[in-house]
Amino acid sequence: MSSVYGGVEGGGTHSIALIVSEDGTVLAKTEGPSTNHWLVGVDKAIETINDMIQRAKVAASLDPDAPLQALGMSLSGGEQKDAIQKLIDEMQRRFPKLSKSYYITTDAIGAIATASDRGGVVVISGTGSNCKLVNPDGSEVGCGGWGHLMGDEGSAFWIAHLAVKTVFDAQDNLVTPPHDIAYVKRVMEEYFQVSDLMGMLPHLYRNFQKSHFAGFCKKVAEGAKSGDALCQYIFTQAGRVLAQHIVAVLPHAQEALFSGEMGLPILCEGAVWGSWELMKDGFTEVLALAQGCGGGRFRSYGLMTLRQSSALGGAKLGARNSGATLGLDYAANVNVFYKHSFN
Amino acid sequence: MSSVYGGVEGGGTHSIALIVSEDGTVLAKTEGPSTNHWLVGVDKAIETINDMIQRAKVAASLDPDAPLQALGMSLSGGEQKDAIQKLIDEMQRRFPKLSKSYYITTDAIGAIATASDRGGVVVISGTGSNCKLVNPDGSEVGCGGWGHLMGDEGSAFWIAHLAVKTVFDAQDNLVTPPHDIAYVKRVMEEYFQVSDLMGMLPHLYRNFQKSHFAGFCKKVAEGAKSGDALCQYIFTQAGRVLAQHIVAVLPHAQEALFSGEMGLPILCEGAVWGSWELMKDGFTEVLALAQGCGGGRFRSYGLMTLRQSSALGGAKLGARNSGATLGLDYAANVNVFYKHSFN
Repeated sequence: MSSVYGGVEGGGTHSIALIVSEDGTVLAKTEGPSTNHWLVGVDKAIETINDMIQRAKVAASLDPDAPLQALGMSLSGGEQKDAIQKLIDEMQRRFPKLSKSYYITTDAIGAIATASDRGGVVVISGTGSNCKLVNPDGSEVGCGGWGHLMGDEGSAFWIAHLAVKTVFDAQDNLVTPPHDIAYVKRVMEEYFQVSDLMGMLPHLYRNFQKSHFAGFCKKVAEGAKSGDALCQYIFTQAGRVLAQHIVAVLPHAQEALFSGEMGLPILCEGAVWGSWELMKDGFTEVLALAQGCGGGRFRSYGLMTLRQSSALGGAKLGARNSGATLGLDYAANVNVFYKHSFN
Repeated sequence: MSSVYGGVEGGGTHSIALIVSEDGTVLAKTEGPSTNHWLVGVDKAIETINDMIQRAKVAASLDPDAPLQALGMSLSGGEQKDAIQKLIDEMQRRFPKLSKSYYITTDAIGAIATASDRGGVVVISGTGSNCKLVNPDGSEVGCGGWGHLMGDEGSAFWIAHLAVKTVFDAQDNLVTPPHDIAYVKRVMEEYFQVSDLMGMLPHLYRNFQKSHFAGFCKKVAEGAKSGDALCQYIFTQAGRVLAQHIVAVLPHAQEALFSGEMGLPILCEGAVWGSWELMKDGFTEVLALAQGCGGGRFRSYGLMTLRQSSALGGAKLGARNSGATLGLDYAANVNVFYKHSFN
């Protein structure tokens, strides 16, 4: 076969695989469940990747027994070097026909690689959350991305958890809720099919499924859209803490990152950004405060989403790692949805 | 055999079993690992209970094949009715020689039953945390005790987590730490045998063991005792939030609970109370604030620890449930370590 490349976008809830030609054309796309190995384990993660890519080969009318030139994976949870190497070793051992070479990076790096060749800031808020700044020279600095027990602030899990925790604390009389809990309590009981707080315990422990728990975020978003004050408050808090991640990495940004056409490019990835309007007040407020103490470099910013799966950036990085270059049309890959210039 | 009763104190890290005669004499005591079924599962929990009681029968020179009159268990995680019934059903099915009758209550209720027949407030801070108020008429109200994902504030796990989270947030530049993190970071790397934050992820997820994670609390206590400001700050926060649990249940207290010799009796259970001196400032500050808005009923309080395992209270309640009465010497079961009267 001619040179074809594979890319994977691996999230905490679902994943996407692409087969891409050398000129950047997407030949096939498949989907699958979570490939975050911290959440589903190494075996399940690589089986899902293999399954998605092999189905994509077939969809692209390729011989499934012919390995790809390179497979680049942009994975949530793809951070730790030792763990990544273990994933790659296992893939090579178990699925030798999958690809000639393998490359794994984080979901954040894969997303930026899809949007640009000159870096930027990416803030992911899906099941989990994560922020990464990539400078034009390739240097990186991150904030967050430590999973639901040590971070994930502003993520769907975090929003769902904050909503549920507010109900628990109010019922316990431990913390006075900022607004009435009636709506959140009712939809919590519906979503988790429980009749009291005790019923929540299996959802938190024995039968804990992060993506299912995080799915409750949708109900909080619905409440916020229909005017529930507590739900609106929670999304404002999410906007604040996501912006705080950007503030955390800003001191490491090189000058060139601020001086593009729209100022600092901020790539907003993950389903929670679908509720941008609900987060806008908290988000813009925190960035405005940061601008005030930024020493004049931070004059404007633009928020973008990807129009393509970050599997494409994964494929690009995987190809680059194998010595090849994929031609990507970056302008076509993004959609700018908000711009702001400070006075 | 003559009428003998069993009691179990089940914690998130270790457990105690007692064999008790009808006059309250402890005939044998054995120990074992966690019997919190939320943490270790139903099978492991009841196997551990059976093993401890059977060893205790042998230690008391009793026939291990002769069932106890009653077995009363005071278990961390022993809250939910359905789950408790399942534990009892499984014990009866798998270990028919263990006891003629079974009774399960929470660690909090078992502790108060050991200290008094007239109720009080118990604040447990061990691996997890929990607060319960029991009125003289037996009515109960609780705060907390929802496990590490939804509560456990002021527990060893919470203290360990707050210490680690402070290091993560400082390293991420997400939150400015209230004090230097150098000591906590160093002992965290030693205790968890890691060289960076990435190394912590298996401890938080794949290989998560709540009791091992909570064990890091000891290092924070050592740091606080030797003068580390961040460790001291963390314990002060723990004192605050534990006191806040008491404030949460106070509105439900009947007048008689305030009018005993030393005022409100507060039973302090769990290993974290060994660091009382480190928590004292935060704890007393919050109760003083609560006194101000308590309408005059809350004039003084005394803090006590148990000198006996709350397995004894468990045995008493198990016996009562089977129609028998164990004679306990309550005054001998407690040690008052702090008294305070508001001006």
